[in-house]
Amino acid sequence: MLNSFVDELEAPVIPMAQAWGQAYDGSKGPLIDLSQAAPGYPPPAEMLAWLGEAAASPEFAGYGPTPGEQALRETYATHVSAIYNTKLTADQTHITSGCNQAFIVAAMAVAGAGDTVLMTNPCYFNHEASLSMLGIKSAYVDCNSDNGFLPDIEDIRSALKGVKAFAIVSPNNPTGCIYPKSLLQKIYQACRDADVWLILDETYRDFMASDERHALFENADWQDGLIQLYSFSKSFCIPGHRLGAVVAGEPVINAIFKVMDNLQICAPRAAQSAVAKAIVPLADWREANRLEIQNRASAMRKAFAELTGWQINSIGAYFAFVQHPFEGRSSIDVAKAMAEQAGVSCLPGAFFGENQDKFLRIAFANADVKTIGLLKGRLQAFSL
Amino acid sequence: MLNSFVDELEAPVIPMAQAWGQAYDGSKGPLIDLSQAAPGYPPPAEMLAWLGEAAASPEFAGYGPTPGEQALRETYATHVSAIYNTKLTADQTHITSGCNQAFIVAAMAVAGAGDTVLMTNPCYFNHEASLSMLGIKSAYVDCNSDNGFLPDIEDIRSALKGVKAFAIVSPNNPTGCIYPKSLLQKIYQACRDADVWLILDETYRDFMASDERHALFENADWQDGLIQLYSFSKSFCIPGHRLGAVVAGEPVINAIFKVMDNLQICAPRAAQSAVAKAIVPLADWREANRLEIQNRASAMRKAFAELTGWQINSIGAYFAFVQHPFEGRSSIDVAKAMAEQAGVSCLPGAFFGENQDKFLRIAFANADVKTIGLLKGRLQAFSL
Repeated sequence: MLNSFVDELEAPVIPMAQAWGQAYDGSKGPLIDLSQAAPGYPPPAEMLAWLGEAAASPEFAGYGPTPGEQALRETYATHVSAIYNTKLTADQTHITSGCNQAFIVAAMAVAGAGDTVLMTNPCYFNHEASLSMLGIKSAYVDCNSDNGFLPDIEDIRSALKGVKAFAIVSPNNPTGCIYPKSLLQKIYQACRDADVWLILDETYRDFMASDERHALFENADWQDGLIQLYSFSKSFCIPGHRLGAVVAGEPVINAIFKVMDNLQICAPRAAQSAVAKAIVPLADWREANRLEIQNRASAMRKAFAELTGWQINSIGAYFAFVQHPFEGRSSIDVAKAMAEQAGVSCLPGAFFGENQDKFLRIAFANADVKTIGLLKGRLQAFSL
Repeated sequence: MLNSFVDELEAPVIPMAQAWGQAYDGSKGPLIDLSQAAPGYPPPAEMLAWLGEAAASPEFAGYGPTPGEQALRETYATHVSAIYNTKLTADQTHITSGCNQAFIVAAMAVAGAGDTVLMTNPCYFNHEASLSMLGIKSAYVDCNSDNGFLPDIEDIRSALKGVKAFAIVSPNNPTGCIYPKSLLQKIYQACRDADVWLILDETYRDFMASDERHALFENADWQDGLIQLYSFSKSFCIPGHRLGAVVAGEPVINAIFKVMDNLQICAPRAAQSAVAKAIVPLADWREANRLEIQNRASAMRKAFAELTGWQINSIGAYFAFVQHPFEGRSSIDVAKAMAEQAGVSCLPGAFFGENQDKFLRIAFANADVKTIGLLKGRLQAFSL
């Protein structure tokens, strides 16, 4: 007999969406894969060279420190301090094997089986499944298209009672929306008032402009309320190397240290050494990518403006949340047919929560401007 | 407030033991580190070259399949099939980020918070802590020195009632003992009779002789009862790259797939590609290491035969479980003083369970024969 918490989980959704794309016959041109968020450009040559050099070194073949390579923790602490006008130390960071793992260890640090974690609807499906498989309950605050998919602060205040943490993603997955600085501060304060941890997943942080950043680290008590997550996968184009990071106060970092010691001993070391070298010199490269992805967002807006029946409800750092014209049809049916017939692969709204069947998540940042330009023709000719 | 399951965990013990070694002043010669199991020889040049080559390739920078690289799953299935006279397929394998993670995903596949998993006493401390942090209860069958630290089959039968899984390690950590083929078959059958999963951690498998292997995969129903774990860390000297593997029936592999999709998306890819290349050509290298570690075991026996008051109670593939002469003293005090004063770092019995204070775990395979020869002088001169 299997563990019912795990047995009852839905099958992982990304492979399902990928299978739809694989069933496409190529008749409309190459598959446009806007499903799993994965930058369409490769890592830069220096990054690959640093990765190769570290992996070939006996220095990183042995066990490393559980919280991460000291060089990476220090560089990352300095990097985040500069972004958020604060002074973090390496001891306030923990390196993980990707940001999904960062979410799990953060959630485990503050919540156990039977506890409740508040999320938004729609939410990132792996967050929901991660909590479920640990026996942690989920509650939701709704985010509606007429409010730019941002949650209402009064809804949040009511929903915080009795929960251990509120987990949000900004820039958001799936909607792309960026939580305004003022809203994030209100959310932070509401969480502090209710003695609830705010877990803020910033996987897509490097794809938003500097004037869109929050000021949460300027709260004197941030260590008592905030747990910030980040992924090196998207920004450095290295998801296959599995690296993420947590910033939190030392009690939370110590709890995560205990969890990680059992879960993984340490994150893979060679890639940590390579990323420690890359953070500073690749700043301009990351900024150029951000600007390029803004171009892609413009191309998305242009393509959809010319399409009848389709509507971009939200678009931001990496994703667009798009309303399809097939009212009443399940978003899974729409996404499956779109992949198989039109060669455009994306994720159905239903993957992200209840009542999301009107929507599709389009990871537009995966594709270049020219490819995004092809969407108009593909979708215009597509019907169910 | 933190999650009490995590907050109540002891601090990770390996860093504690490492700190004792760091406090040693070097006056007796270099520290002899027999604490964390970490082969004292480096990975071979080919292994490092394959690791470097894969990590530098854009091919492995992107996301990979959650269950693991197909090349590694196929090669590993063939490899385990040859060892155990069976016919496994890639679909019966799942690659993880180290064997600690393999244990956690295996445990989560079959047990949730509130369930009980049976272990041995002494047991590997990270297994115990992993269950605790998930809210899974532990029960124990005692293993005594007068029975070579093997559990009694009748004790097991009585203890299996109401548990979800029985987790054992063979070759054992901490005692080094190798579970005889006949005992493992009886344990397997007892587990099947009680409808309990047998989780068998074979991290140290490559350090035992081929005639010491079990025949569990020859049971026609093994997929209904057996979950086998393995680590590439010790055998290939690459713990820093974090790779392990599970072999199980497809329903368990599917459950692990769901867990891993949330926990990690996929294990680090470049190292998977390198290990897929290494399994066959490095067979002779691994066998030579096994023979070398047998020499180290002989050197251990010789060193301790000449020491008064010390006794090797069990010695096997990688570890010796040694009785120290300081009766009534806590094994933590003994191990700490031994590291700080004699420059010999090992792990106290108390790390591995209750009533283990008479013992120390010595990872003798970490050190070469010459270094092991120094133990006699260091320990003879050591007193509390």
